[in-house]
Amino acid sequence: MPDKRIAVLSPIAWRTPPRQYGAWETVASNIAEGLVARGWDVTLFATADSITRAHLHAVVDRGYEEDSTIDPKVAEYLHISEAFEHAGEFDLIHSHYDFMALSYTRLVKTPVLTTIHGFSSPQIMPVYEKYRDGNFVSISNSDRAPGLNYLATVYNGIDLSLYPLQQSRGDKLVFLGRIHPDKGVHLAIEVAHMSGLPLRIAGIIQDQAYFRDQVEPNLSDTIRYIGAVDVAGKNALFAEARALLHLNTIPERFGLVLAEANAAGVPVIAMDLGSCREVIEDGVTGFLVQDVNQAVLALDRLPGIDSSACRSRVGRHFSIETMVEGYERVYRRIFKEHAQNGLPSGG
Amino acid sequence: MPDKRIAVLSPIAWRTPPRQYGAWETVASNIAEGLVARGWDVTLFATADSITRAHLHAVVDRGYEEDSTIDPKVAEYLHISEAFEHAGEFDLIHSHYDFMALSYTRLVKTPVLTTIHGFSSPQIMPVYEKYRDGNFVSISNSDRAPGLNYLATVYNGIDLSLYPLQQSRGDKLVFLGRIHPDKGVHLAIEVAHMSGLPLRIAGIIQDQAYFRDQVEPNLSDTIRYIGAVDVAGKNALFAEARALLHLNTIPERFGLVLAEANAAGVPVIAMDLGSCREVIEDGVTGFLVQDVNQAVLALDRLPGIDSSACRSRVGRHFSIETMVEGYERVYRRIFKEHAQNGLPSGG
Repeated sequence: MPDKRIAVLSPIAWRTPPRQYGAWETVASNIAEGLVARGWDVTLFATADSITRAHLHAVVDRGYEEDSTIDPKVAEYLHISEAFEHAGEFDLIHSHYDFMALSYTRLVKTPVLTTIHGFSSPQIMPVYEKYRDGNFVSISNSDRAPGLNYLATVYNGIDLSLYPLQQSRGDKLVFLGRIHPDKGVHLAIEVAHMSGLPLRIAGIIQDQAYFRDQVEPNLSDTIRYIGAVDVAGKNALFAEARALLHLNTIPERFGLVLAEANAAGVPVIAMDLGSCREVIEDGVTGFLVQDVNQAVLALDRLPGIDSSACRSRVGRHFSIETMVEGYERVYRRIFKEHAQNGLPSGG
Repeated sequence: MPDKRIAVLSPIAWRTPPRQYGAWETVASNIAEGLVARGWDVTLFATADSITRAHLHAVVDRGYEEDSTIDPKVAEYLHISEAFEHAGEFDLIHSHYDFMALSYTRLVKTPVLTTIHGFSSPQIMPVYEKYRDGNFVSISNSDRAPGLNYLATVYNGIDLSLYPLQQSRGDKLVFLGRIHPDKGVHLAIEVAHMSGLPLRIAGIIQDQAYFRDQVEPNLSDTIRYIGAVDVAGKNALFAEARALLHLNTIPERFGLVLAEANAAGVPVIAMDLGSCREVIEDGVTGFLVQDVNQAVLALDRLPGIDSSACRSRVGRHFSIETMVEGYERVYRRIFKEHAQNGLPSGG
């Protein structure tokens, strides 16, 4: 199918790929680059400072989270509409832009596929209900809303070359993610206290009050917050990691960091909520737990986890190649249905 | 032209027409009702609780300023896209929806006219720059941005029957408008202090700190804040008004309340900034001033203002009929240009 032209519509909260945090932009980037590597003609709609081997189409200079002079609302309207105004140049628009892009889909002939990276609030559901007959992909089987026309689950893929297998296991517990109650930083701290093991906490502070009240008072020589980290920072953490603690308090949608840790050979102790049981194979690449006590007990079983088994599972299920193959199957189905409906492909 | 079908896209911050505050919704309502009265086939896109003789098309139950359960961003995307998804049913979409609606205009064949009720922030200007070749109407000659394709200025029109001519002049100064520094409530208070005349202040509090620091400490038996008022409340104020004080500190875009006061025969003392000199005829329907001192001096000249001259000027320039006739001229020009471009009218 490499004669088909694909538009990948990335978010513009951050650069694509992001410098540090930015899961949606990371996945959009991996898809765009993966498609290019397999010969597709890809145009990436993203911020102007984005880095890609695809054609870059940008009307917003920088991510609105990285430049306070940018009005997010204005930037979003300009960015999303720009992609749809160029719909006629593409055989498919692959949107990673939340609910907003859906509102343009019925105004173009080009088919649109939306990867739902998460339902950012219950209040956006009326938009999904209106456009429920669109084309949707879920990023885990657990993260699905009833009634939407899902064509498949396609797991997020990571670039394994960015996260090399660590030669030996470290002695520290690691938390990696947004500092927010949803991510259970306070539970990771409890595990550190109960086990007496050192803990490293890394990630952007999304909930300042939570950080101030439930994280900061617990910081010490052994429990440290090191700020947001980039890929090199993540690898430095993986190098000294005994395990990644991911004790989320709400259902996880996918959990990119679980795959990244596993790729580096680091076992993951994850709350059995949402997609964690799809990403982590219990007893093989980590442990699924119900509470802090089980997480502490799981620490004793870590030596039984084989680092290369962790990495090889990521290679099979959560690589860019696997993801892109998954999307290629979805694209082909859409092209076929679009042709059968007698609509000219390419708006 | 009554065979043409017009869609009027109203904002959804408030009901159309609004119960109290809501200038954009007021004007959209007056246009829709005025067009219906002249035989046009009009569909009003507005909140579901809106009141109109046009066909009402609504996907949002109530104004997001009146119902905190409504997410403004979600409601706006649903509301605006709904109108454009139905573009094919109309010969013209007349948008009152700020910059957001522009982002859909190139995706439909139906011509779109945008009345710019104000540039809500400098950050929205890139959107106007992108769509500068669209069809725009300004609501005063003073409120224009360079480079946009303005087809005309059409002054806002009010329903004169709502504001009957008061039989006699009262003794109080009246401020009517949002409680915000832009509207110069503090300057009206200064005039009251300097002249010793009683002042009545009415309007929604948009800037709480401003109200607390610069309005509330000045309230007394003679200077009173009476909250937001509806049409009946405005007329009660006009009945006891010596003059309306409108000492705006930034250029006024139009100033509906100036026309409303004049319709009731109440003279207006207005800062000579922005559109005020287009709405008020200096020495005939009120006085244009440069500062508080001039406003105080103007008070002595109020007996020279003839109430019926105030009202008759509003009837000539700022009635619904005059406004609708102005828009009809613009519509005809758009229909003509659209036909000449060989585009089928009606998308």
